[in-house]
Amino acid sequence: MTGVTPPSASEARELVEPVLRDAVARLDPLSARVAAYHLGWTDASGRRTEGGGKALRPALAVLSARAAGGDEERCLPVAAAVELVHAFSLLHDDVMDRDPTRRHRPAAWTVFGESAAILTGDALLALAQELVLDETDPARTRAARSLLTATRRLIAGQGLDLDFERRDDVDLEECRRMSADKTGALLACACSIGAIAAGAPQRLVTALASFGAETGLAFQLVDDLLGIWGSPETTGKPVLSDLRSRKKTLPVVAALTGGTAAGDALAALLATPGPLTETDLREAARLVDEAGGRDWAETEAKHRLDTAERHLARADMPAAVRAEFLDIAHFITSRDH
Amino acid sequence: MTGVTPPSASEARELVEPVLRDAVARLDPLSARVAAYHLGWTDASGRRTEGGGKALRPALAVLSARAAGGDEERCLPVAAAVELVHAFSLLHDDVMDRDPTRRHRPAAWTVFGESAAILTGDALLALAQELVLDETDPARTRAARSLLTATRRLIAGQGLDLDFERRDDVDLEECRRMSADKTGALLACACSIGAIAAGAPQRLVTALASFGAETGLAFQLVDDLLGIWGSPETTGKPVLSDLRSRKKTLPVVAALTGGTAAGDALAALLATPGPLTETDLREAARLVDEAGGRDWAETEAKHRLDTAERHLARADMPAAVRAEFLDIAHFITSRDH
Repeated sequence: MTGVTPPSASEARELVEPVLRDAVARLDPLSARVAAYHLGWTDASGRRTEGGGKALRPALAVLSARAAGGDEERCLPVAAAVELVHAFSLLHDDVMDRDPTRRHRPAAWTVFGESAAILTGDALLALAQELVLDETDPARTRAARSLLTATRRLIAGQGLDLDFERRDDVDLEECRRMSADKTGALLACACSIGAIAAGAPQRLVTALASFGAETGLAFQLVDDLLGIWGSPETTGKPVLSDLRSRKKTLPVVAALTGGTAAGDALAALLATPGPLTETDLREAARLVDEAGGRDWAETEAKHRLDTAERHLARADMPAAVRAEFLDIAHFITSRDH
Repeated sequence: MTGVTPPSASEARELVEPVLRDAVARLDPLSARVAAYHLGWTDASGRRTEGGGKALRPALAVLSARAAGGDEERCLPVAAAVELVHAFSLLHDDVMDRDPTRRHRPAAWTVFGESAAILTGDALLALAQELVLDETDPARTRAARSLLTATRRLIAGQGLDLDFERRDDVDLEECRRMSADKTGALLACACSIGAIAAGAPQRLVTALASFGAETGLAFQLVDDLLGIWGSPETTGKPVLSDLRSRKKTLPVVAALTGGTAAGDALAALLATPGPLTETDLREAARLVDEAGGRDWAETEAKHRLDTAERHLARADMPAAVRAEFLDIAHFITSRDH
């Protein structure tokens, strides 16, 4: 990710991080060690490091509490819970995808082993719910349910994503649904859970969730483009890694289903048995572009972001909060590619 | 497992199973398919089969609601949630332990793949919380917290169990703690969560949880003995499987740390590099016995069961409910070995 983190995200990160650290300290020693590494707080030998994610999801959760006029302090455990669910999903996804790199470092499963990564993911998922339910309050129960629904959609999306790697008949609508589940659902939850926990009216919650869902789809499109044309320095992943694992990402499926000769050539190339060579991969990327997949994804990302903005416009909130929401939405969908 | 399932368990199973089936129907198609197989409702091709677990944990949860004078019907989602957490842990444990067999059938990961088993476990964990939180009620929040605490202890116990396989200095106290986490915590939760959800006083909840924790330890000891001397027909697992994977179970650790010549010989044998032969495994089992591990575990299991009964005796509840609790406790700790 490039660019300067929006101020509201940096501020939210400072507020949420102590809550996250206290939460991780509740874990059993093995999970605590793996989680601290995975969250970027320590290196493989357990020494403190500077780092960690940008905490954009917690920032969105804090903004959504502010949008509802809720108490920011009380919302922090809920914001931290969203980050824990995100961390859980990355831990497990890397095991399933056999992805050796995460945020420019060896993925946790390559350092601590698969079992430790699975167990730590499980522990983080349970811990996330604990944080939300630390307070006994009907609004917290609703927040917990929202996070659980998002978690199950995220799991469903990852299941479809894996399924798509083995299929050659994925259409664009299925692929969009997969991205909506895998990426949109947790962002929709992040953008609305603070408001839910603050007891906001359903109208505001729905508008915020829709804003998050559309921003999530825009983000996924940008991420898919980076997975093909992003540099390893930007993505923290090996070059062309999505094509290597034959992921049916949105630009790839758009290219495959666009009815062009380049799309047919791409289909034939991806159907080659055995691992794809570097030459194959570069050719595949060129064919996605030629078949219009790149243009389509760029246009679609802009369209999703416009729709997100419209949802945000109809939500009643202080202008400063709205501006910060937009700031983060633009930040996460404008990565250098 | 042998013997006739106690009537209260058969009855509870009939009550809980429809709730479990409705819950599993909420899952995404992949998770629903894997879960139905794992729960024994379908075969690998998705055809309906007769089968499924004995649902002893839900039975205990239903009993605990009755102990507190709670509404049995309202407690069913909570009882089902405990079974889902149990199912989640078995799914993930089999992946981590590379255990190819579960309940006399191929383990889910060998049928659907590791990723599907991981994802389905994740989905079941989230679904369990959903069931508890379907009702907005402070007692349900407390029940959800109890289940989360048990889940995290279960995860911690599995982490220690895996760690112990690689260590040769495990002492009996650590091993007991591991079993208390891995097996005792969820049984303690099963025995008390119905009462918690029914708003029972803390005194009753604590007595029931202690009963469950001690019963859980007795059960684990019996299970450890079966892991060495149980027949595959009884256990549904390959013979001597725990010794094969050098699991530091309670009887093994008792044998290793008893200061006997047989214990030292066992330590030397288990330190042999590479896989153990069938002759090695039989010799290891003989040495556990000679070093007193088998006797110790049998005595300790009886002692734990006695303690469990004492905890139950001080809990105020209808005599019939107490009798059914005891019935299940004896059933799960008297497997044929």
